[in-house]
Parts: sequence; C-alpha cells; structure tokens
Amino acid sequence: MSDQYRLLLNESDIPRQWYNAVADSPAAPAPVLNPQTKEPVTPEFLSALFPMELIMQEVSSDRFIDIPEEVREIYKLYRPTPLMRAIRLEKALGTPAHIYYKYEGASPSGSHKLNTAIPQAYFNKISGTKALTTETGAGQWGTALSISCSFFDMPLEVYMVRVSYDQKPYRRFLMEAYNAQVFASPTNLTQSGRAILAQDPNSPGSLGIAISEAVEVAALSNGQKKYSLGSVLNHVLIHQSVIGEEALKQMDMAGEYPDVVIGCVGGGSNFAGIAYPFLRENLRNGQRTRLLAVEPNATPSLTRGVYDFDYGDTAKMAPIVKMHTLGSDFIPAPIHAGGLRYHGMAPSLSSFYDQGLIEAIAVPQISTFEAGLLFAKTEAILPAPESAHAIRAAIDEALKAKETGEKRVILFNLSGHGNFDLSSYNAYLSGRLVDYDLPEEQISSIREHLPLSQSAPVA
Amino acid sequence: MSDQYRLLLNESDIPRQWYNAVADSPAAPAPVLNPQTKEPVTPEFLSALFPMELIMQEVSSDRFIDIPEEVREIYKLYRPTPLMRAIRLEKALGTPAHIYYKYEGASPSGSHKLNTAIPQAYFNKISGTKALTTETGAGQWGTALSISCSFFDMPLEVYMVRVSYDQKPYRRFLMEAYNAQVFASPTNLTQSGRAILAQDPNSPGSLGIAISEAVEVAALSNGQKKYSLGSVLNHVLIHQSVIGEEALKQMDMAGEYPDVVIGCVGGGSNFAGIAYPFLRENLRNGQRTRLLAVEPNATPSLTRGVYDFDYGDTAKMAPIVKMHTLGSDFIPAPIHAGGLRYHGMAPSLSSFYDQGLIEAIAVPQISTFEAGLLFAKTEAILPAPESAHAIRAAIDEALKAKETGEKRVILFNLSGHGNFDLSSYNAYLSGRLVDYDLPEEQISSIREHLPLSQSAPVA
Repeated sequence: MSDQYRLLLNESDIPRQWYNAVADSPAAPAPVLNPQTKEPVTPEFLSALFPMELIMQEVSSDRFIDIPEEVREIYKLYRPTPLMRAIRLEKALGTPAHIYYKYEGASPSGSHKLNTAIPQAYFNKISGTKALTTETGAGQWGTALSISCSFFDMPLEVYMVRVSYDQKPYRRFLMEAYNAQVFASPTNLTQSGRAILAQDPNSPGSLGIAISEAVEVAALSNGQKKYSLGSVLNHVLIHQSVIGEEALKQMDMAGEYPDVVIGCVGGGSNFAGIAYPFLRENLRNGQRTRLLAVEPNATPSLTRGVYDFDYGDTAKMAPIVKMHTLGSDFIPAPIHAGGLRYHGMAPSLSSFYDQGLIEAIAVPQISTFEAGLLFAKTEAILPAPESAHAIRAAIDEALKAKETGEKRVILFNLSGHGNFDLSSYNAYLSGRLVDYDLPEEQISSIREHLPLSQSAPVA
Repeated sequence: MSDQYRLLLNESDIPRQWYNAVADSPAAPAPVLNPQTKEPVTPEFLSALFPMELIMQEVSSDRFIDIPEEVREIYKLYRPTPLMRAIRLEKALGTPAHIYYKYEGASPSGSHKLNTAIPQAYFNKISGTKALTTETGAGQWGTALSISCSFFDMPLEVYMVRVSYDQKPYRRFLMEAYNAQVFASPTNLTQSGRAILAQDPNSPGSLGIAISEAVEVAALSNGQKKYSLGSVLNHVLIHQSVIGEEALKQMDMAGEYPDVVIGCVGGGSNFAGIAYPFLRENLRNGQRTRLLAVEPNATPSLTRGVYDFDYGDTAKMAPIVKMHTLGSDFIPAPIHAGGLRYHGMAPSLSSFYDQGLIEAIAVPQISTFEAGLLFAKTEAILPAPESAHAIRAAIDEALKAKETGEKRVILFNLSGHGNFDLSSYNAYLSGRLVDYDLPEEQISSIREHLPLSQSAPVA
C-alpha cells in the first residue's frame, strides 16, 4: 500500500484502446428507434447527425476500439490525469477507509468532457464535416467541444440554455475565446426554438430544447453540419473509458483495489467512464467492486424514473432510446448542478442498473454542497456541484466504514472543478439553497407521455 | 532530447530546501528602512507584522533554507507541477525553437501563489498568530492565502481592492468558500481607509491602499494578528524557488537546457521563482541562460522606473525598501493584468537587474491578449492575463529563432490560468481593450516623491 498523495502515470500509460462495456453486457442492447416512425433507426437517419465512424462505435459490439494516434496526441496535453489519495479528508473524517479520487478537473476544460470532445471533433474532421452543432447547459460540455473544435479548425455552434447564457456569461466568454458561436436557446433560428418562443417569449430554455435546436440545425444542413452530444450515447461513454482504465493502473500502483467506485450521474458519461472498466473486472475477472451512481434528489431518473423507450429531447427530434427516464417533457427543478438536470440516463447504464450490476442513490442538494465544501477545505480543490454528489456518497461510505471499524477502499471520480460555479457556492453559504423532492404524482404520470406507451400501453 | 508533452516528477522530487538567491548576489542587499524614522528597521518593528521565522528568512544570507515537512505534505497536493513542451504552439509558429512551460496554474488556487501562502500560514500558526490580514487585487493571492489558512484553522481578513470586489464577485465567493472574511477596500474599519474615503467616498481603491489597511490592522492588534504579503519581499521569493528547482530537474529529464527563462513581473515573485535557480547556475556553474522579466507597458517599474528607496504602500506604513519603483503614489492604468498593477518591484530582483544579471522588457496590453489566445488555441489552457505577458515574450523569442533559423530552447513560467479573467478576454474579443503608455512627465516626477529624495536629494 502506498502513502503517496498523487499517483501519476506517464504519457505511455495513456490507454491505446477505449473499452466498450456493451460487449460484456449479459443482456442484449435495446434497439434505437426513429422518433418519427418509432421503428429501429436506419444508418441514413443517424448519418444526418453523426459521422459514420461514430455511428459504428455507437452500435459496436467490439470489446475494445483503437484510439487514433491523433487523438492520443491531444490527450497527452492533460492525460493521464492524477489519481489522488484524499489523506487530509480521511483524517478530517476520522475514518479507517482509504479514499481515492481520479481528478478529471485537471483537464484544460476543467472537466472530463474533453475525453469525448476530442475524438468527436477528430472523427467529424476526417469525415469531411464542415461544422458542428451542440447544446450546453452549465457549459462544461460546450467548453470542451469549443477547445476540441479549435484544434481541428472546425466551426462550432453552441445552443446554450438561456438561463445559463444570462447567468453564466463567463462560460460563454470562455467558449468564444476558442472561436465558438454561442446562441441563447431557445433562438428564433430554428423551428423548435420558434415554437417554444411562440408559447413563451421569455422561456428560460432547457437542455431538452437546446438539444432539439442543435439537432434540427444539423439535420437540415444537407450533411454540411453534424451534431455532437456530450453524454448518454454509447460512443460518448466508450470515449470516457480512459478514466477507468487509467484508474485501474493507478490503484495497482497504490497496491489496493476499490471496494466501491462512485460517480455522479446526469447523462451517465463520467460515471460510466470510471466504473465500466471495473464492471469488466467484475464480470470477467471475478472482482466484486460495488459500482455506485449518485444522482440528485431533484432528477432521480435511475432511482425513481421508469425504464422504457423515450425521446432524448423536448421537440422529439432526437432518436428514441430505452432508458431510465423522468419523461422528455420533464422540467427539472433549478438545482445548481446544471450538468445533472437531464430527464434521461445513458441506455447502457440504464440496462446495467436494470440487471442489478450497478447501484444508485439520490442525494439532496444542501448536504451535497456541504460535502463539496468539506472536500475543498481538506483537499484544496473546490469541486463542481455535479462532482460534489460523488463526494457526498464517498464521505457517507467513509463514515459507514468508521461506524463499523472496517477498512474500506473507496474510489470516486472528481469529474470537474467548481471555478465556474461560485455563485452556487455563494447561494449555499448565504443560506439561499433549498432541497427539492420530486412529488409522487409527477413520477406516476411519466408513463402516459412515453412514445410507445401511448400507441401500445405497457403492462 | 525528449519528445514528451509533459515532464512529470514524483512526490519525492519536491525540493527539500528553498533557494535564497540573495546569498549568491555579487552586490550586498540594501537595508530595509522604518517608514517613520527612515532608519534601518528593528526586529521589533517587523515583528509587529511578521512572525520571527519569516523575518529570519527575510534577512537570511543562507543559500538554502529547509522546507518544513508539514509544508511539503501540503505541497504534495499539487507539486511537483508539470513541465510542458508546447509542441502545438511551436508548430503553429513554425519555429525551430523548443518552447517549454512550467504550469503553476495546476495548483488548486490556480496560480503559483500557493507556494508561499502555505509556508506563511504555517510559520504564523506555529508562532501563535491568531489571525492573518492581507490585501488582494485580482484575487489570486487572496485565494491562495484563504486555502492555506483553512488548512491551519487560521482566520483571515482580506482587504480586496474595491473595483475588483465589485467586478469579480466570483473571486470573493471563492475566498469565502474557504472561510476568509473579505472587505471592499478602502473600508471605514481603518484609519488609512477612512482617510481615503474622506477624500473620495467612491474611491475604487488600489493595491497600495489595501496594503495600508491590512498592515494597519495587524500593526494595531497587539500581536494577535499578523500581516501576510504575496510578493516583493525576499521570504516570498525564497518560497517560490520550488518552481525553478523543479524546472531544473525537468529540463534535465527533457535532455535540454534553456537559453532563456521568461516570467511576467508585477512584484516579481513568480519570475524569481522560476529564474533564480537558473541565476544560481549562471553565477556558480558557468551557465549563460538569459533571464527575461516581462512587465506591462502600463507599469514599467523595471524598464522605466527609478532604482531608489520607496514605500511599499500608499499610506506609507509599510517598510521602505530599495527597489525599481514608479512611486508609491503611482496610480496604474486599468490594465486587465491586475496582478501586475503595482508600483514597485522586489528588492532582490531590482538589484539583480541593476547588476545586469537579468533583462527586462515591457509589452503592450493588446498584443499580450493576442498571445494568450494563440496559446489557448494551441495548448488548450487559457492563461491568466498576467501570465500572457510571459507568453508574448516567449512567442517573440521563438519568432526571432525562426528568423535566424536558430534552435533556441525557451522556458517560461505559466503562473496561472485565466478562469477568473473571462471578462477581460471578452473585452479583448469585443475590441474594447486599449494600449496604455506611461507619459514621460510621469516618469520624470517620480524622484520628487521618494522618501529619501525629499530629505536628501539624490544626485
């Protein structure tokens, strides 16, 4: 066992292949459906949105996919990221547990999102895409894709949820520094945007609306522009596997193996990134690590949503996938973890949860910020509110270990730093934060609005 | 020669001693004077402001000073910082030069300031100090000291220049997240503050005024509170030597040795941090590396200021030191590199410059931001506007090497990231930035206001 604070790998340790956990899933993946026909999508439908290489990854059943050398070259700017032992946090908690965290906030975009933004920009570039469109909420994804597009001289249009556009001008300025064009969504540039504005000219927007706008612009561009998504889809989760592959090597350096691996979940990509390589070790090599997804009480798609086919966006233009969902018309409470305010969950993650291969819990907002600040005061890094969900769960696991006197090895993913979330911390410190709970009525009405339930009621 | 992007050291490579360049100075250091008596200060005068261990470091002529194990333990949270080869920037410039940068923005506070904040908090703690006071402009120093004080359960009062307090609320929230108390300076809590407010109730404040307030509060606290400064003084520069000591090892890993070492200068601490260990190699081991300090055109204390005794603050309460200065009543133009808006320069750096052992240049604001953005688009990291001064000079050196076809090895210090400077980048991108030049009249009147020149005119 090592007593080092930071476990560092060299450039040569950057994985050469991404891991595709779908290949190891005991259950077969559900089909992806065309939102108009509700039949399985054709490659033509998807190719209006994505380049062929990413579509092939999306539907791939290969266990490993080679990382192009051009992508690895850019990964070298910040990967491998450090694995840290949270020795000062352990002491503050007085726990016998060992707490490790993988620090993805060390990337230049400040979060794990760059891990998929770089290959997405790359595969689009080599496929002849002329420009990319995307949506962003809190701005972590938009920032990562802006940086990646600037590397490949690829123009980028970002549809940014209006409330964030107005409240987080600095995030917008950051994307603009890398030459992205940022629009406050809903815009009057798209049919989906105009439809929303017609109902409510002051609409604050939502991630679902912004996705609809970005998808529409790509779909109507005659193949000139493609769409890029920062979570949920399987090719995104595949790219994030670099996190867990590195963490496996670093835990080995530490001379320990985690009893539990923890990550926050919105669409699911950072959790999948750290957890799926450990899931493989569970499924194939007899390990028994618990894999714990942590979501906000306010958007509990895994713990309280239904597992069924649903639209990915508000305007019902994006593909229909089978996932844990709160309904595509769900309006999340205004929690400060903007990256977790999404109605659905990655299909592969939903399936693994359904199969009992991963666990999930939901945590309230206030105690999440409390955990984030305890982490900041002991480990120095101010975490993103999203990542603070993982910290809350890690601290709770460490406190349970203290109660039982058990030596437990805890690993969590610190997916990003909180430099752009200071108004949220200020709201917490000023006592202005509240906890949200989802009323049971809202849960019980989800099924009525699902695309397949309407035509053919689900038992 | 290595072709790695990142050169990483292990925890065990964190230096065990700080380097004190004064020990190797051919010229003897000038005395520090009491601002009231204008005679050399007594230990009693200094001990109202600083704990004895830091005073001993301030006046030390020892070449090396042991780093306490408690300080090294905290350094391990982020040190050693990476040394990066800017391969993508080199390609964009088409230069035969090799450009390396030491990335101090990788620290949890986002800049090099933590290197001295930690030992300052530590030495105060073990000396029984009950609370610290300090000033901050842009907020980098205040953030670093807030984090460090939270590690040692030490209350901290930060006097923050009012214009920054109003314009940069996020920096304030960040300090508050680590429990610091932040005041908009000038306040009505101090005599110095009230004197300024009596003249101008809407005073935007300045670093000089904020220093006066923080010094006054400490000086009048009967030894309960001490004062902490983030640059200029020799003990601060000594602590920053960890940057250059690590860089020496990392350049060795790279199989190269720098022809020129570059840093931006405000008070001088990040430049001294990277450059002094290389100065030692010049003075003692026959190396001939050029050491280049880069200041803004708007505050050219080295290139256009006078070298004489001057006050460190506006209210003339801080010690008088011999330095390159623009006069303690100098009001810097509102450039966006807030950390460089100071009238003076570290005494040791001023002396080395006077002895011809280091070089200095001044650069204009607009081309500095241009350099910062080229760096962001090639190396992904958005630099702090302060650090962009070093980048401007590094790029110019690389372009000269391109002209002459010469292979030059360039090393610069990337002292911090620009996550809190996005309104400045937005001002640049919107064409709202201007260049400032200091009129000759202002320079020629500096001497008239110096403390010793008035009593005894300088030849």
